[in-house]
Amino acid sequence: MTPQAPSREPRQDRSRATRRRLLEAAIDCLASEGWSGTTVAVVAERAGVSRGAAQHHFRTREDLVTAAVEYGAEVRMRSMRARLEASAGTPLTTLEVVTMLGDLYTSPLFRAALQLWVAASSDPQLRAQVLPLEARVGREAHRLTVEALNADESIPGVRETIQATLDLVRGLGLAALLTDDSPRRTRLLTQWAKTLDTVLTPPPDPRNPSNLQPPP
Amino acid sequence: MTPQAPSREPRQDRSRATRRRLLEAAIDCLASEGWSGTTVAVVAERAGVSRGAAQHHFRTREDLVTAAVEYGAEVRMRSMRARLEASAGTPLTTLEVVTMLGDLYTSPLFRAALQLWVAASSDPQLRAQVLPLEARVGREAHRLTVEALNADESIPGVRETIQATLDLVRGLGLAALLTDDSPRRTRLLTQWAKTLDTVLTPPPDPRNPSNLQPPP
Repeated sequence: MTPQAPSREPRQDRSRATRRRLLEAAIDCLASEGWSGTTVAVVAERAGVSRGAAQHHFRTREDLVTAAVEYGAEVRMRSMRARLEASAGTPLTTLEVVTMLGDLYTSPLFRAALQLWVAASSDPQLRAQVLPLEARVGREAHRLTVEALNADESIPGVRETIQATLDLVRGLGLAALLTDDSPRRTRLLTQWAKTLDTVLTPPPDPRNPSNLQPPP
Repeated sequence: MTPQAPSREPRQDRSRATRRRLLEAAIDCLASEGWSGTTVAVVAERAGVSRGAAQHHFRTREDLVTAAVEYGAEVRMRSMRARLEASAGTPLTTLEVVTMLGDLYTSPLFRAALQLWVAASSDPQLRAQVLPLEARVGREAHRLTVEALNADESIPGVRETIQATLDLVRGLGLAALLTDDSPRRTRLLTQWAKTLDTVLTPPPDPRNPSNLQPPP
């Protein structure tokens, strides 16, 4: 072991922990105070990090907020994937899947992402920074939903209906912005799970009797 | 006719026209420049109205923007209602109805409303001002959709599916914020219309043979 190793390692750990604290504080700050109330200085104070240390990690609000939404999305997607893997023996019901998505899109992370998307819509430079992130998160959310529902996208209409499910929960997230409408959301998602099941499992095709057989 | 009438009438008309120009300019300004780029002064300049005249109509940005979204929603709803009435003989297809909703929720009006909703989410005073407007527009959009689809909300699941349709198009509006994804939206709404038809017209109930009869 070199003499520097023990001190270098903890310094990297400390730096990583500081970064994480800033990212988490940025999500909370955006969700509650909005774009204009979220500056690097305000987030640093929330995170209990000196302004200088915060500036060392993130030079601008745009950098901080984009990194925070990216980090938050990774954490949520990882935890959704872990839940899927944990339940691999007994797959989630369609209602459990759409409820999980509904929870994701009404979380502080969604509210934070919404602030970023809306700010980017009138700022071309920020928009260029946000577009690849939006595409990546969208692809990953789609992939996770297909896996969670064990959906066969070769069945006509299934791919579009999975996309519609994600657009629907995005719309529900927006509806929850000003009022807590969770009872309405629960009724709506309960009905949507039923409808989704009919699209995901179409009646067997009489022209193709192999559909009538259970898979080997 | 009193001597004052001719001069008072045009003055009222002029004032109403000025107000309308301000409201329309505010919607365009919000949609393209966002909340922070939309002030009473900027909107007055866009509308070709003096700053003093604009201030006479709207004291604050919050008042101007709330009135603009309310005005825009009324105009759009009125034109949707006119379209329904014009086509009363030959009802719109489900695809035509969901396309009409998709267009509404990707219009500059939706982008303007989104700016207002998001600003209100971190401003309690503005939130109190926006909530009744959101509820009114939501109710009217629901009523129009039920009428346009000629939907029977006493059928189980229909009411929730109509609501889901409105949440879906709201989500689609959000997805269209940063990129023009109209080809995806068209595919998705085409499939949604098919799914919607199966929910709106459930198979006849064998326990109730009257369902098998066409209505008189």
